[in-house]
Amino acid sequence: MPKKIRVHCPATIANLVCGFDVLGLCLEAPYDIMEVSLLDEPVIRISSADGYPLPSDPAQNTAGAPLIEMMKEIEENIGFEVVIHKHIKPGSGLGSSAASAAGAVVAANKLLGERFSNEDLLRFAMFGEKVASGVKHADNVAPCIYGGITLIRSIHPLDVVALSAPELYVTVVHPQIEVKTSDARQILRKEVLLKDAIKQWGNIAGLVAGFLKNDYALIGRSLEDVIIEPVRSILIPGFDEVKSLCKEAGALGGGISGSGPSLFMLNQEESIAHKNEEIMQEVFKKLGIEYKTYVTKVNKNGVVEV
Amino acid sequence: MPKKIRVHCPATIANLVCGFDVLGLCLEAPYDIMEVSLLDEPVIRISSADGYPLPSDPAQNTAGAPLIEMMKEIEENIGFEVVIHKHIKPGSGLGSSAASAAGAVVAANKLLGERFSNEDLLRFAMFGEKVASGVKHADNVAPCIYGGITLIRSIHPLDVVALSAPELYVTVVHPQIEVKTSDARQILRKEVLLKDAIKQWGNIAGLVAGFLKNDYALIGRSLEDVIIEPVRSILIPGFDEVKSLCKEAGALGGGISGSGPSLFMLNQEESIAHKNEEIMQEVFKKLGIEYKTYVTKVNKNGVVEV
Repeated sequence: MPKKIRVHCPATIANLVCGFDVLGLCLEAPYDIMEVSLLDEPVIRISSADGYPLPSDPAQNTAGAPLIEMMKEIEENIGFEVVIHKHIKPGSGLGSSAASAAGAVVAANKLLGERFSNEDLLRFAMFGEKVASGVKHADNVAPCIYGGITLIRSIHPLDVVALSAPELYVTVVHPQIEVKTSDARQILRKEVLLKDAIKQWGNIAGLVAGFLKNDYALIGRSLEDVIIEPVRSILIPGFDEVKSLCKEAGALGGGISGSGPSLFMLNQEESIAHKNEEIMQEVFKKLGIEYKTYVTKVNKNGVVEV
Repeated sequence: MPKKIRVHCPATIANLVCGFDVLGLCLEAPYDIMEVSLLDEPVIRISSADGYPLPSDPAQNTAGAPLIEMMKEIEENIGFEVVIHKHIKPGSGLGSSAASAAGAVVAANKLLGERFSNEDLLRFAMFGEKVASGVKHADNVAPCIYGGITLIRSIHPLDVVALSAPELYVTVVHPQIEVKTSDARQILRKEVLLKDAIKQWGNIAGLVAGFLKNDYALIGRSLEDVIIEPVRSILIPGFDEVKSLCKEAGALGGGISGSGPSLFMLNQEESIAHKNEEIMQEVFKKLGIEYKTYVTKVNKNGVVEV
């Protein structure tokens, strides 16, 4: 059994426009790098390779809390040392906390000879999300662990469905503004119109069918959100312009990544994904907002050893 | 070109538990029989072979209104005579009006050398639903025309997605009580909790994935409705007992067909479908309610010439 491994912990896009709280997609870039070592004493030590300050109590850390849960189900006298190279900016809406939580448990499981199932790992990793945002949601950690596109059909009981999809190029822009997940959640209404909910479940059903049937046009038509986006997009300057210009340029569709502020567009063609990137850069340059862009693909593997 | 044809117009199940207003499934039984003749004058004549009284104005008839719409797009001086053998009871929740509307336009289109697309036919047939219930819904006419299982992703613009599925045996019971579609719609709340809507779109996404991935267990887990069923099932005596006993006997799941009062259960095994039938018969016998049951399968063809 190796005593130390190194993993890539990818960014993820939660919600996927019409799949609020249930759909997620794993990206090839950006990703964190994490080094995890097996210790022969029951402690958890976590540090940042970049000098980023972390909570000293592992229970308060997004990588630590999942490891504590995992250790509750292990009889041996072991612990873990984790060094995180953070490349996914916290607060970007790209699943930074999920990458830490998922990376820690996938790496630890490899060090332990793969004794836990993906579903176990997901269950542990959700404790990291609870530390990060107060909610034990799974729409980022699931695609980060399983890879590809995942549906969380239900949280209680946990039911994860892996969805195949045709090749997709993803353009992402992270405008360097702050949108807190808790704020993005608070501005949502607790009740929605039944007629809007019907539109939304027509769209998510269409999106899932589009993925599984490799039907790009159907994916594009289904990427519509009549409930969350009209409220949350107000928090993100440039949203309408980015979306309409990218779709005009040939993007299938897209929207807010997680609770934002990052935006993403899905594309059938790599060349259009690059055009989308230029559009995003121009919009945020004009707005005078710092940004970072990525042209990437769906990552079918999730967290992997490197 | 034939001057007269005879078609089978099958029953359909709308909603499919978690797909309110968007999902529908075509059944092999029961079905109406319809004879449609091409006339050389621009009239529509509709009669019932069983002496069932029909509105004399074709515009007020579920088969007539769609034919009127079709004739608006035809330049020739032609008309249709329609004789309906009604076997799907109006008010059963099994798409009786949709069978008449879909049967009429599919038959007429065959008499005209198939000049209209399925999407055109659906557009026409929806006028029959408007006559029947006041709402131009498509969740029965779409599976009746396309066959199999259909998703109406959107009504404006019309977007129909055909969904493949593994072999399914369907048990249906029609308790002979009256539930008016308009009543069944009125008792629904116009607003729903966002957290319930999220459960519902998790389930419809799971159901669509289950169909397309031939995953019976996922189909079963996804057949859950937290929004419509808790309200509508109150109108149907025996509902809870039928559902829980059938599931105990091995049914994947099921619920109210359309707006009821018919109930249905989906099954992987034919033998369990027959057990479900016995359960349904016992429940309604005990309640002293007349009933009719069917053990049937998904009809992949929709309206067909016979």
